[in-house]
Amino acid sequence: MSDNLEISRRRLLGTMGAAGATGLAVGAAGGAVGHAVLGDGSGTTGPALATVGSTRVPFRGAHQAGILQPLQARGHLVAFDLAPGAGRKEAVALMRRWSTAAELLMAGEPVGPSDGGIARDAGPCSLTVTFGFGRSFFDRTGLVARRPQELEPLPAFSSDRLDPKRSDGDLWVQIGADDALVAFHALRTVQREAGAAVRVRWQMNGFNRSLGATARPMTARNLMGQVDGTGNPKPTDPGFDRHVFVAAGGAQPWMTGGSYAVVRRIRMLLDDWDALPLKHQEAVIGRRKSDGAPLTGGTETTEPDLDKLGPDGKPVIPADAHARISAPEQNGGATMLRRPFSFHDGIGPDGTPDAGLLFVCWQADPTRAFVPVQRKLDRGDALSAFIRHEASALFAVPGGPADGEYVGQRLLEA
Amino acid sequence: MSDNLEISRRRLLGTMGAAGATGLAVGAAGGAVGHAVLGDGSGTTGPALATVGSTRVPFRGAHQAGILQPLQARGHLVAFDLAPGAGRKEAVALMRRWSTAAELLMAGEPVGPSDGGIARDAGPCSLTVTFGFGRSFFDRTGLVARRPQELEPLPAFSSDRLDPKRSDGDLWVQIGADDALVAFHALRTVQREAGAAVRVRWQMNGFNRSLGATARPMTARNLMGQVDGTGNPKPTDPGFDRHVFVAAGGAQPWMTGGSYAVVRRIRMLLDDWDALPLKHQEAVIGRRKSDGAPLTGGTETTEPDLDKLGPDGKPVIPADAHARISAPEQNGGATMLRRPFSFHDGIGPDGTPDAGLLFVCWQADPTRAFVPVQRKLDRGDALSAFIRHEASALFAVPGGPADGEYVGQRLLEA
Repeated sequence: MSDNLEISRRRLLGTMGAAGATGLAVGAAGGAVGHAVLGDGSGTTGPALATVGSTRVPFRGAHQAGILQPLQARGHLVAFDLAPGAGRKEAVALMRRWSTAAELLMAGEPVGPSDGGIARDAGPCSLTVTFGFGRSFFDRTGLVARRPQELEPLPAFSSDRLDPKRSDGDLWVQIGADDALVAFHALRTVQREAGAAVRVRWQMNGFNRSLGATARPMTARNLMGQVDGTGNPKPTDPGFDRHVFVAAGGAQPWMTGGSYAVVRRIRMLLDDWDALPLKHQEAVIGRRKSDGAPLTGGTETTEPDLDKLGPDGKPVIPADAHARISAPEQNGGATMLRRPFSFHDGIGPDGTPDAGLLFVCWQADPTRAFVPVQRKLDRGDALSAFIRHEASALFAVPGGPADGEYVGQRLLEA
Repeated sequence: MSDNLEISRRRLLGTMGAAGATGLAVGAAGGAVGHAVLGDGSGTTGPALATVGSTRVPFRGAHQAGILQPLQARGHLVAFDLAPGAGRKEAVALMRRWSTAAELLMAGEPVGPSDGGIARDAGPCSLTVTFGFGRSFFDRTGLVARRPQELEPLPAFSSDRLDPKRSDGDLWVQIGADDALVAFHALRTVQREAGAAVRVRWQMNGFNRSLGATARPMTARNLMGQVDGTGNPKPTDPGFDRHVFVAAGGAQPWMTGGSYAVVRRIRMLLDDWDALPLKHQEAVIGRRKSDGAPLTGGTETTEPDLDKLGPDGKPVIPADAHARISAPEQNGGATMLRRPFSFHDGIGPDGTPDAGLLFVCWQADPTRAFVPVQRKLDRGDALSAFIRHEASALFAVPGGPADGEYVGQRLLEA
């Protein structure tokens, strides 16, 4: 393995929650932007360390892009419903158009003669465009027989405050890029290419740290100031693929290589949180705020010692600490890959920010990952007093397209 | 002048509208982030080419930061009204607190023991925090005698569709940074330090291209895909200071070194715009979309030949083209420094984006800069059919604080 690949793997595997770069080298000082290619986890095909602009993520592969890539600085989530009268035929044409557009966009190329030009001059900027199907899509297209069991509606949780207008949807597109204009251009293009086949159901904007904002790649922080993503599984972990991606030989062969995305708009009650003294914040989370290390000591990556008692005879990591409740070993090994964006949609009439986390998590089976963990958090997490789940959706995200295929072809044309 | 200063000046002066970097060199691979210092136009004090994170803008100087610096990737604009009962005394204490906080924030330091930690690990990321006073501030603080003539309300324009709730305000803070978490942290800190002295009146979020998204620094594009900012004056232009900053010896000595900011939320009717064929878009603007060159030929920086006629005997740059109407020579030399952010606040119920430009322009006297230009655009600009001014504000932005001073001290304690 060459040095470049080594560095690339480290960037990819070691910093799932980080959006930093250990070094940036700028390419051509003028003219066209040269494109580095960032692997999708199934194989890295070029130097990973390049300008913000020139990093390109492949559209084709075993998995769709936007699952294994490092967090991007800017994101758009958008759900569509099929228009009245549109069915399987229109869905086929739509997924063909969207796939063609996504491949061009991710290569940093304009999409057709009516391209708006917003992203012109910029490189691909690590753009990913990811497509998913909601439960209702299968009703609308007459494909109920191919609907995965895993798309059963998520159970209601006692702390849910869900807005149905901002939840669910026939189709879902996740857009991420390290440049806001590139991301917006992709969103506009996806909407334009949708034509009359669909209507926007909801749309949300998010962000993460910029590349190079920290001196070295680090796990992300959320808007509570917490290091968030430490416990994320790494592609090198045993069983990673099994936890995150649908294996071959399942009940729905078209989902092989795919994954299920749970999307939750989690409002953070930041004024309440920020008013809490640091020691109390750390007790709620079970980790130090400064570096994310467990309260039982060590560094960010040290395993929490859930059995350790303090001088007062109580657990050092409290019984209701978020880190304890959400730990895989407390949830039968439930493992999911979290890949969120933060959001901030302004300040409400009461002066509090409409801000929080666009939580997106990936798993082979939500009933063995998100659902049991959220059930436990819902009952006993000290963090619950400071957050509010305001929207929810679940999508089947098929595997990546092979050469000549469009996304979802194995579902729609099997 | 050293090479570093040369490059720094070029970055600063030659690319007011661009957010690119010709080269990025990362500092320490671990530990504290080293801070490069970016000049404020009055003198460059360190190497300008550094990581996204480590670039620091000085808080003190002849002018406040956030006027001459390159466009940042992320911005927050927020206006406050003094709380009932609050007056000059509270304003003094507020500006002291805000100045202390802004200086720490811009240095990448936490603000007090209750700092939320959102920006922890990141460097200053070119953060700027800029403060201004609205017309109503002088009534509330008993300082009407020191209210500049330049704060007379802007005239109504026929195409205005202004929302008073998102317009005006006693106080204004402009926040810009190359990292979204750093910018959000600054916004939260400004709100926290405001305490009970003020209430948020309105708040808007914006963005520009990320550093390094293009292979070389380039003038920005807006969400219409147009190169936007070509005609901006450069600090090296004759008369730049006179046009942008208030000179000594004026009617209000406290405004020496200051500037007036006009803020307009300009919604773009992007679906209408994008439906327009390229040739028509170019006729509306008077410039080529691909590279921003005038329709009369040359490159982006070539002066438009406003008298040139085409084979049909009509002006090559149409009579109602935006580039013609807004040209300084068509407006008695009116010159202002535009330094906007794009915005995108989601997709409305009709499926169209709530997106456009948070237009911010800087001038020594709005009645000789923004007002005459906007009057002319309002009457005859072909672009007017594709935009809608939805909010408006005008603020007096005092000069930068000297050592030991807080922002606005010369107004509040003279």
